[in-house]
Amino acid sequence: MENLLRITDIKGYAPQIGRLISMMNYARFTTLEAVKDLNPEQLDFLLDPQSNSIGALLLHIAAVEYAYQVSTFEKRTLNEEELATWGPALDLGEEGREKIKGNDLAFYLTNLEKVRNRTLELFSSVQDDWLAIEEEFWWDKQANHYFMWFHVFEDEINHRGQIRMIRKKLLS
Amino acid sequence: MENLLRITDIKGYAPQIGRLISMMNYARFTTLEAVKDLNPEQLDFLLDPQSNSIGALLLHIAAVEYAYQVSTFEKRTLNEEELATWGPALDLGEEGREKIKGNDLAFYLTNLEKVRNRTLELFSSVQDDWLAIEEEFWWDKQANHYFMWFHVFEDEINHRGQIRMIRKKLLS
Repeated sequence: MENLLRITDIKGYAPQIGRLISMMNYARFTTLEAVKDLNPEQLDFLLDPQSNSIGALLLHIAAVEYAYQVSTFEKRTLNEEELATWGPALDLGEEGREKIKGNDLAFYLTNLEKVRNRTLELFSSVQDDWLAIEEEFWWDKQANHYFMWFHVFEDEINHRGQIRMIRKKLLS
Repeated sequence: MENLLRITDIKGYAPQIGRLISMMNYARFTTLEAVKDLNPEQLDFLLDPQSNSIGALLLHIAAVEYAYQVSTFEKRTLNEEELATWGPALDLGEEGREKIKGNDLAFYLTNLEKVRNRTLELFSSVQDDWLAIEEEFWWDKQANHYFMWFHVFEDEINHRGQIRMIRKKLLS
């Protein structure tokens, strides 16, 4: 918390990894602020029948982070068991609306924290050159690991923006 | 575009500055994708009377970037003339809804581009140690320049998430 507004070194991590984690930490801080004190009914609220609930977006944020752990550190896609756990949250939409509901805030926060702790463990095992490793990604283009993890937190921020809109509507 | 999915060096900029610009470039690419082909009426559309239009959010993105140019490179706050230009877009809300409307997409894109070009010029004048310069910022905490510019693009991504929601509703 003391370094919340610094993108800088973090003890125990390589310099660039520390900066990446600094950005992820701030993004997460704001996500948690945006969902503070919401009850299960509010977490399930839908702005309209085609939209995603705040709960589903929270689980999506955890699911995306988990999926990128698997793709960048294990270089594989999710297996069937993992897809059973994370699939609805990854895909959102119809399946997400059906399967992700009735949970309290603690359920979502626990998932976010568990996944994040594993990310931090994995990050402590690599050096900065790991960020430069490339592979074919979207639109037949090369992407590096740095981009992939940038995308993890930029997707979180994107949905946090949506969560703020839904919350504003909920509490107005 | 060739480096769209790489967070890496950019010719003409210091290494860390290049990585920061890489992230800003990708964020901007997705913002532009999210507003493609919208007409003035769509840019003015309000999800509800308390919300912001896509047009206002686009001008907000340009305004925030301009404000951080002034605060981090010139170490001052906006003067009266600048506030007359950017104030409604910075503050959004009531004043934004009143004053930011009736513009076509080109108006917003021109503003975004002009401000971005100035950012790139300013970034080419500093080295990586500039990112570590700190000052008192939110909540009596120290923030460094890297954080402040991270915030510029994380605010853009936040609003891009909202723009996507509004666009989905508009086109559904």
